[in-house]
Amino acid sequence: MKPAVLPLHDIYAPITEHLRAVEQLFDEELECDLPFLAQICEHVSKYRGKMLRPALTLLAAQACGRVDREHITIAAVLEMVHLATLVHDDVLDEAETRRRSPTINAMAGNETAVLVGDYLISHAYHLCSSLDSQYASRTVASCTNTVCEGELLQVHERDNWALTQEQYLTIISRKTASLISVACMLGAKYAGADAATINALESYGMDTGVAFQVVDDILDLVGSEQQLGKTLGLDLDKGKVTLPIIHYLEFADHTARQRLRALCANPSDQSRAEIRDLLADSLDCAMNFANQRVQSALACTDRLPESPARNSLRAMAEFIVQRRY
Amino acid sequence: MKPAVLPLHDIYAPITEHLRAVEQLFDEELECDLPFLAQICEHVSKYRGKMLRPALTLLAAQACGRVDREHITIAAVLEMVHLATLVHDDVLDEAETRRRSPTINAMAGNETAVLVGDYLISHAYHLCSSLDSQYASRTVASCTNTVCEGELLQVHERDNWALTQEQYLTIISRKTASLISVACMLGAKYAGADAATINALESYGMDTGVAFQVVDDILDLVGSEQQLGKTLGLDLDKGKVTLPIIHYLEFADHTARQRLRALCANPSDQSRAEIRDLLADSLDCAMNFANQRVQSALACTDRLPESPARNSLRAMAEFIVQRRY
Repeated sequence: MKPAVLPLHDIYAPITEHLRAVEQLFDEELECDLPFLAQICEHVSKYRGKMLRPALTLLAAQACGRVDREHITIAAVLEMVHLATLVHDDVLDEAETRRRSPTINAMAGNETAVLVGDYLISHAYHLCSSLDSQYASRTVASCTNTVCEGELLQVHERDNWALTQEQYLTIISRKTASLISVACMLGAKYAGADAATINALESYGMDTGVAFQVVDDILDLVGSEQQLGKTLGLDLDKGKVTLPIIHYLEFADHTARQRLRALCANPSDQSRAEIRDLLADSLDCAMNFANQRVQSALACTDRLPESPARNSLRAMAEFIVQRRY
Repeated sequence: MKPAVLPLHDIYAPITEHLRAVEQLFDEELECDLPFLAQICEHVSKYRGKMLRPALTLLAAQACGRVDREHITIAAVLEMVHLATLVHDDVLDEAETRRRSPTINAMAGNETAVLVGDYLISHAYHLCSSLDSQYASRTVASCTNTVCEGELLQVHERDNWALTQEQYLTIISRKTASLISVACMLGAKYAGADAATINALESYGMDTGVAFQVVDDILDLVGSEQQLGKTLGLDLDKGKVTLPIIHYLEFADHTARQRLRALCANPSDQSRAEIRDLLADSLDCAMNFANQRVQSALACTDRLPESPARNSLRAMAEFIVQRRY
């Protein structure tokens, strides 16, 4: 039997105050003298949702002994970078809803959305360069390079129904896990942790990030739009081949492939139910893969001293594979 | 009679070697392990063209006494930021040609183009964060915020045929002149110039940048696609109201407005010739405005000691209003 999952509210308990400081800094950084733009930035704030990356920076810091002002800055920077990628993703995916709100592209057009994404990125670097050392700026910029590479690779491999699991892992490690890994790593680094602990938290983040994206891809196929609050079933429609599909295609004949294509081209509650049936074994297989990564992430936390923050890092990894949103 | 204009080759003579170092650093920074992406980055390098911003950083530095390794880095960073905005502009404008080459969006689609722009920006910050101090990173990020604001304002004011000259100047100061101004300012700052000289070069850049964009907007209406090597006549087609249009609309009746709209909606060599006739006085008026700004830029160079670099800064300002490309 799977352990009961703490809701995020409880997981975040050791860092609630700090998360509020992150939100405040985020809003301050995006203050702007142009009223129409101030309004858009306020709308963007609604996308913050889970605050996964800031929470990981703060929990990693706390688990290593202390949360400093620098962690608040880094956490806000990472959330800003993340939101920038979401805003651009929504343009690329032609998505209409994000966290139950209209996307920027749906609300103000693709041009504004592209520029708002750029604006978030430059604000992220502006904020990051307020730190004393260049280390975080350098690390975040290097990571953002990697994120872009992952996204570009994904576009490049679009409609490649021969995509291997290895290629898929290269894509999601770069586009998703790298930023989550850096969030954890910088939390430890700026708390003054030793090299081995920093590495352990970097690995924890990489494992957690890969598991997170695998589950995200599963939810895109079988989740509920209502629960997730965003447009679903877009991945295959946009030619994105994800882990359950890779497993399924390994054994599918021509007819089965055609059936899958047809179902994915017209996403609806009914087609999603049929996809769920068709892919049942492959979805289990993908979920097992995610679970293994979570086990690996949990092992990385072993070298941390016992603390509420360490418990939260462990609960967070488990939350990722059990979430429905 | 106007003075003869030096071609850029001569203007750049005092810094030719340094510009080569900038190009080399630019290419090194964009090296990448993904072959398809390395190919795109190579293509992006072709857009470098005039290298106006790097040249200004280097000339400002030289005019203030010395060009250091830091200037090479800053110059490469600014060109990378500039190219990122070009790549995203081409997506927003649906442009097909840039410097006689296909745009990234024409070649590889909008999604890849958006991501390549992001990739260039994150590489710019990655490179900038290799400097010892955060000052350049902080300044460049702040300036990029301003550039985004200018571009967002431009989109927001689209199709506003009541746009005033003041609003137009706010847009172009932010979207274009700010980066050119920072290029000059950082050149002086990192050469160890005194505060008054740094301010003078910042103002030189602001004036030069405004003049540059006014001329760019004039060329979009009456330039030759062949000479400029890019798709033209897009501004009004996309609802961008520029200085000659603002002047023209001040005195145009309903029929004249309709005539202008029709001509701009179907850009061709013939319609461009007609636009030139229709706007003749307004184009002169806009060009006078640019010329005044160039005079103001020239005055800013007065406090610099005489040197080949100072002569080049003066020639550059003059080049900007006399260029045909």
